[in-house]
Amino acid sequence: MNTIYSIRRTALIEHLKEENICCAMISNPTNVFYYTGFNSDPHERFMALFINVQTNEEFLFVPALDKEAAEKAADISTIIPISDIEVPFEIVKKTIGDLTIRLGIEGKAISYNQYIDLKFYFPSLELTDIQPFINTQRMKKSKVEIAALTNALKIIEEVLAKGINKVKVGMTEVELVAELEFLMRKCGADAPSFSTIVLSGEKAALPHGTPGDRKIQNGDFLLIDFGVLKDGYCSDITRTFAINSFSERQKELYDIVLQANEAGIDAVKAGVPLKTFDLAARNVIEEQGYGTYFNNRIGHGLGIEVHEEPSVHGKNDTLATEGIVFTIEPGIYIPNDIGIRIEDTVYINEQGEVEVLSTFPKQLQII
Amino acid sequence: MNTIYSIRRTALIEHLKEENICCAMISNPTNVFYYTGFNSDPHERFMALFINVQTNEEFLFVPALDKEAAEKAADISTIIPISDIEVPFEIVKKTIGDLTIRLGIEGKAISYNQYIDLKFYFPSLELTDIQPFINTQRMKKSKVEIAALTNALKIIEEVLAKGINKVKVGMTEVELVAELEFLMRKCGADAPSFSTIVLSGEKAALPHGTPGDRKIQNGDFLLIDFGVLKDGYCSDITRTFAINSFSERQKELYDIVLQANEAGIDAVKAGVPLKTFDLAARNVIEEQGYGTYFNNRIGHGLGIEVHEEPSVHGKNDTLATEGIVFTIEPGIYIPNDIGIRIEDTVYINEQGEVEVLSTFPKQLQII
Repeated sequence: MNTIYSIRRTALIEHLKEENICCAMISNPTNVFYYTGFNSDPHERFMALFINVQTNEEFLFVPALDKEAAEKAADISTIIPISDIEVPFEIVKKTIGDLTIRLGIEGKAISYNQYIDLKFYFPSLELTDIQPFINTQRMKKSKVEIAALTNALKIIEEVLAKGINKVKVGMTEVELVAELEFLMRKCGADAPSFSTIVLSGEKAALPHGTPGDRKIQNGDFLLIDFGVLKDGYCSDITRTFAINSFSERQKELYDIVLQANEAGIDAVKAGVPLKTFDLAARNVIEEQGYGTYFNNRIGHGLGIEVHEEPSVHGKNDTLATEGIVFTIEPGIYIPNDIGIRIEDTVYINEQGEVEVLSTFPKQLQII
Repeated sequence: MNTIYSIRRTALIEHLKEENICCAMISNPTNVFYYTGFNSDPHERFMALFINVQTNEEFLFVPALDKEAAEKAADISTIIPISDIEVPFEIVKKTIGDLTIRLGIEGKAISYNQYIDLKFYFPSLELTDIQPFINTQRMKKSKVEIAALTNALKIIEEVLAKGINKVKVGMTEVELVAELEFLMRKCGADAPSFSTIVLSGEKAALPHGTPGDRKIQNGDFLLIDFGVLKDGYCSDITRTFAINSFSERQKELYDIVLQANEAGIDAVKAGVPLKTFDLAARNVIEEQGYGTYFNNRIGHGLGIEVHEEPSVHGKNDTLATEGIVFTIEPGIYIPNDIGIRIEDTVYINEQGEVEVLSTFPKQLQII
């Protein structure tokens, strides 16, 4: 029977054949999940799917302590456990024999040391990076994946709706993080998709700041950027709220970011370069004189990873295609003063129509 | 003024000079933290500390959006931001000039693609792996680090003491995870140090299983393996509890694991091979006929990372030295039946004495 995983592997195998790549070694855990259904982080241990196009064989090498779990979850019949006292590439060589051919690898996933080891165990091997193909394949989301992403987003929006009721003046940022992550689990999340960001007042000016002991105060802007992992897929959303009141200046800056968010989303369509979306949003902020306070890309792909392809930045000339999912998240960050970000998730569906998957209101809200 | 970070860098620079390595590129975020005090995960973006031994220059390259945070936290005066539209190694080359020398890199931290990029931008570069030296340096914990590790352990033990009062028959594993991670934050943790493991009944037979919807039942063994991150350092502890009652067989298996845990700890001392500790614990389990049900190493180093050097397994001939911190965590995992693990953290202090940092009781406890 064809599973979604075997269909994905078939597409990969077609690519390998076209490129005269005789074997692929997939070791990025998210790609192992994508091609096998086995979703596991082996940490420092070795895990890899080998697909030998010449012999039509598929092997999934896993840490010995994950053997049972892999056998249950993976869409691969031959699971080879590697114990903590074994040398991974020795087991690989014993299992699949010598590789004297072109091996497809993920250039960002294998380390320099693994490269040296590969050359040692398979001296005549030629390596070729197949991550670009995998990225292209993973970028085009299927309906099943969109359903999973939408579900992960639904959970985080429920958490956000409930979470803002927990906010109290005098509460610290980390206390709110505790409440939000508790709600994530209660609402059915498997885990946060990244370290929850709650930043208040001037602290929000650090786009990747760390929640701390600062107490939430009247008149603060409160920035919440978070997401959940559910069934292997991520959500990611940012909203910025006003605590009990806001000044005219706060409202003015907020509305610039909101306009930028909307301009970015309005620019989204298939067939144009990805940079278009970044520039459309950035122009709004630059025209208002705040360009220097928005110094990161407009967005990133979202799927099995919270940051994946495509990277939506001002120099990315790649054309947007049907099936991609990414964030639009402009911001204004004035050091030691204020930080605002509004982040949505956008999907270009199979018909080339743009769907904004996020539904949480974006008008400035007092909480 | 000498900081703990500059002292660490000085030791690294001494090593580089001895080995005729003229420049080091440190890009593993945990090593960047170790040498600079800036604790940040750049995700897919580029972050690296360059130490040029020839010119006595130090540069910390960070994603542009982390510039402010790096300037506040890092013990390095020259912070170079790299924006999302810049090419990292172009900026590196512009900043430090051509590198025609031996460059020290972390062999596991740089990817194959980064290696290819380095060769492209610096064609006459020769790479050498300095991670082994860094590992040795990081393995020897200072008093400040032991205090941080002890504090992280104190927090997780408080969470465990409070958390077992939350356990109720009929509660699912993930519901308990939610309660435990909420308690972590309430008790002052910065984050979980890894994905919290709560496994009940036969599910505990998967050493790295995922908490799910299984409801905790009377007569279950409940395995809790978790830890927190606090001020950059990790804790990690496992205890297995009996829900309201236990059978004779459960008690018998539990006591074998407990004996193995104690035998492993009793074997710990400086100057003997690390494998000694693994074998001492493993022998107890093998002698009782359960050797096939304990198929992973006895433990791992603990510090800035929840898994770091040393790896304490049955073939590691490296001698244990003063200053190392690692776990002792034997288990018995009988598929579809039962799983038990008892994990402590052990420290060989500067005098060569063994200190068990974990204090949570280990006798079989009914909850």
